[in-house]
Amino acid sequence: MATSTASHNRVLNPVLKQRIMSADEAAALIRNGDNIGMSGFTGSGYPKGFPTALANRINSLRDKGETLRVSVLTGASTGPELDGALAAANGIEIRLPYQSDAEVRKRINAGEMEYVDMHLSHVSQYQEYGFFGKMDVAVIEVAAVYEDGRAIPSTSLGNNRAWLECADRVILEVNSWTPLAIEGMHDVYYGLDIPPRREPIPLISVGQHIGSPYLNIPIEKVVGVIESSEPDRNSPFKAPDEASKQIAGHILEFLDWEVKKGHLPPDLLPLQSGVGNIANAVLFGLEQGKFNNLTSYTEVIQDGMINLIKCGKMTAASATAFSLSPEMIESVFADVKEFRKHIVLRTQDISNNPGIIRRLGVISMNGMIEADIYGNVNSTHIMGSRMMNGIGGSGDFARNAFLSIFMAPSLASKGTISTIVPMVSHVDHTEHDVEVLVTEKGLADLRALSPKKRAQVIIDNCAHDDVKPVLQDYFDRAKKTAPALHTPHILSEAHSFHERYLKTGKMLP
Amino acid sequence: MATSTASHNRVLNPVLKQRIMSADEAAALIRNGDNIGMSGFTGSGYPKGFPTALANRINSLRDKGETLRVSVLTGASTGPELDGALAAANGIEIRLPYQSDAEVRKRINAGEMEYVDMHLSHVSQYQEYGFFGKMDVAVIEVAAVYEDGRAIPSTSLGNNRAWLECADRVILEVNSWTPLAIEGMHDVYYGLDIPPRREPIPLISVGQHIGSPYLNIPIEKVVGVIESSEPDRNSPFKAPDEASKQIAGHILEFLDWEVKKGHLPPDLLPLQSGVGNIANAVLFGLEQGKFNNLTSYTEVIQDGMINLIKCGKMTAASATAFSLSPEMIESVFADVKEFRKHIVLRTQDISNNPGIIRRLGVISMNGMIEADIYGNVNSTHIMGSRMMNGIGGSGDFARNAFLSIFMAPSLASKGTISTIVPMVSHVDHTEHDVEVLVTEKGLADLRALSPKKRAQVIIDNCAHDDVKPVLQDYFDRAKKTAPALHTPHILSEAHSFHERYLKTGKMLP
Repeated sequence: MATSTASHNRVLNPVLKQRIMSADEAAALIRNGDNIGMSGFTGSGYPKGFPTALANRINSLRDKGETLRVSVLTGASTGPELDGALAAANGIEIRLPYQSDAEVRKRINAGEMEYVDMHLSHVSQYQEYGFFGKMDVAVIEVAAVYEDGRAIPSTSLGNNRAWLECADRVILEVNSWTPLAIEGMHDVYYGLDIPPRREPIPLISVGQHIGSPYLNIPIEKVVGVIESSEPDRNSPFKAPDEASKQIAGHILEFLDWEVKKGHLPPDLLPLQSGVGNIANAVLFGLEQGKFNNLTSYTEVIQDGMINLIKCGKMTAASATAFSLSPEMIESVFADVKEFRKHIVLRTQDISNNPGIIRRLGVISMNGMIEADIYGNVNSTHIMGSRMMNGIGGSGDFARNAFLSIFMAPSLASKGTISTIVPMVSHVDHTEHDVEVLVTEKGLADLRALSPKKRAQVIIDNCAHDDVKPVLQDYFDRAKKTAPALHTPHILSEAHSFHERYLKTGKMLP
Repeated sequence: MATSTASHNRVLNPVLKQRIMSADEAAALIRNGDNIGMSGFTGSGYPKGFPTALANRINSLRDKGETLRVSVLTGASTGPELDGALAAANGIEIRLPYQSDAEVRKRINAGEMEYVDMHLSHVSQYQEYGFFGKMDVAVIEVAAVYEDGRAIPSTSLGNNRAWLECADRVILEVNSWTPLAIEGMHDVYYGLDIPPRREPIPLISVGQHIGSPYLNIPIEKVVGVIESSEPDRNSPFKAPDEASKQIAGHILEFLDWEVKKGHLPPDLLPLQSGVGNIANAVLFGLEQGKFNNLTSYTEVIQDGMINLIKCGKMTAASATAFSLSPEMIESVFADVKEFRKHIVLRTQDISNNPGIIRRLGVISMNGMIEADIYGNVNSTHIMGSRMMNGIGGSGDFARNAFLSIFMAPSLASKGTISTIVPMVSHVDHTEHDVEVLVTEKGLADLRALSPKKRAQVIIDNCAHDDVKPVLQDYFDRAKKTAPALHTPHILSEAHSFHERYLKTGKMLP
């Protein structure tokens, strides 16, 4: 396809060309109660014009006394033009499977929005199995559409294949911000039938292509095509702070030992890392380190991975989306033909597929809100009730990983919150799925340890010095007074840290 | 191989023939601190002579002031001759990954035995990845060994392939109780290399054979061969009680509706069910019901499945072990050539493989100890501290199932314990993995519901009538006073049911 920045040159299919309309016209096609599947994953590849126009329509209808609310299903988090605008207009009835928008979070925790927090690998099959009911409309951002209806995807794939296949009607948003030279970076696998007709997914290496570089657009279902040119949300890169660097240091030292012990090959195994400071610190550490021929099988491509590719330390990275700083995405776009040799974007039912993650032997590194002395991890809830973002893909990766690592600084909120607590206030990853815990204080290797052994190594290695004696006191007394000694707990005190925080604003006395 | 009941005719390999010894002689080969991998899964296919002899040796050494303690890794639970005898002799230092023996449970909860509760699909790879350290000895029950070292496995496969490959030394227990005509019922897959060399497992249907009917015995590592003729533990069958029948009724009605809604094919999808009364009640219900051409992809073959095969309603069943009543195993043995057409026994890294379970679209049905109003499930711990049995394969199945169902009567312990509580005292299956909850009171379909919606349907449909108002009161007050309204909890009261039980012996006032 000839390169061009004008969107109308990016819609080569003659039928679709005739369906080009404004975002307002497309938004007018939505009915109250519609289930809408949108593209978008960690702030990339989401429609920008459509949801903003829909939010405007919702607001103006409200002024007339009319209600328009919809359910919004995406890949994962999106951007302010989608989640922010629709939440501000109070236009979202049900939201799933993941969000990280301040306005959405506020509505969820005020009880004004239904939020269904799901494993990201479960989402497309839930729709395909019929568990979500009918999907009325899919709104999908793409980079361009060929004459025959094949579309070049944009900066994320998420659930786009499934939404296009399942929705009654389709609205395309053709975004000219994405360079056409991204063509070939995607791998859309069309072999994932539903049971009992599902067959083995043939993926055996990170960089392998097993599908098509294109999304098949069902032309007959397309009711509108919007042109846009807005960039993705792309948050600024924050340099890793001291705690993140220390955490990264512990992890890198641990991986080094695992290689020496023969548990890991010298080039490690494919890396997965959640978004954020600590993840980037680990990637930054790898850039300075001695490991070569690294690969990454993960959800999102972050700044640190691009640096690893640039310096030649990472040969292949597979994800379902970019999540880069504005500078970094521009540098990728400027040299996208080169990056196409190293990066594959897949749909999230493949990027997060439990069978593939176990097959490839992924080293999984995810952040956490809190962990308890027995190694249960809370990734989603503050004080048991308040939703932060969601579990995202951490469950897909942690349980199936070769090594499952969870990490966070030992204190949060200016020292008022301890990451290590007697009992977490919500469990997203059970003791059975958490192999390594890391804070800036140190690393706890929990593999093949019984609960009491886990507790001692977590208290010793991970808790902050101020918290350590309080946890040790709890654990010691639990071993004396608990009704049984496999996992000694004093239930009346198990949430004392959280209860004290809710009363006094501090977890410790 | 010629049929025979004498074990010595079952060891055709000349080298192994020379290594035939008594169980006492084999037990004398064990050193203090050895890691021993034994065969055995839910009371079948475990060595009988060896562990009893080892327990005797431990006792007589103790009389002389000497210590002999070992770590015992199995497939899952075993029998009184193994777990019971070794625990009574206080000879087990570390036990994993699952147990259901009264003596073992007592030692674990008294803090006298380290117990590592693991997903059953994780166990063999933990050994193969090196995370358990060196395995000193494998003690494996087989039915017979051919001249060339191929062994006919016995009534379970569990982790036998991995133990034989990983252990420094091997002791075989050749059990003549298992009929030789079982030859061909097993499928030992030798293609599961460790990452980064792992390839897709080619299994696409329940009854398919993808490997060898034999275990490859590493002759050079075999230090002893024991002959035995003892039957498996095989617990008597208990007819389903009224509550189990009601639970089964709710599940069958639900499955019927799922077929009508087009979510499930008319012949359903492969069934997995945990061991026990309720599971057998469901299988019994299927025997009376209208579904045909049923299949089962599960851990253990239970009485109900044999009945379904006998009456022609089940065409294929795949598991890693038998867990039958004494009468039922005899009836299978009597007609084993016919049952070979319908039953495949696999190693547990295949029977419980997350990728295969998701691929086949298994309908998963597992028991639980308790569930909370938000749908988190506790499968392992009584009052947060006391280990019951272990998570077993429930996590492997629930998270990857097409439909994940958990079931239990609404009351336990003569009505003193409510199965539905405000917050579970331990989490094994998070809200993200629990789609359907069932008690004799009714069924809660939790798919695509936000936490508060889940809570109301669980209270309404599953809680016992006496408990319902207490739960409703908690939930209503939580919605008014919780610090946020996504998952409203009052942390100071969240475990009030359990605290009251520990004080008064009853969960309700």
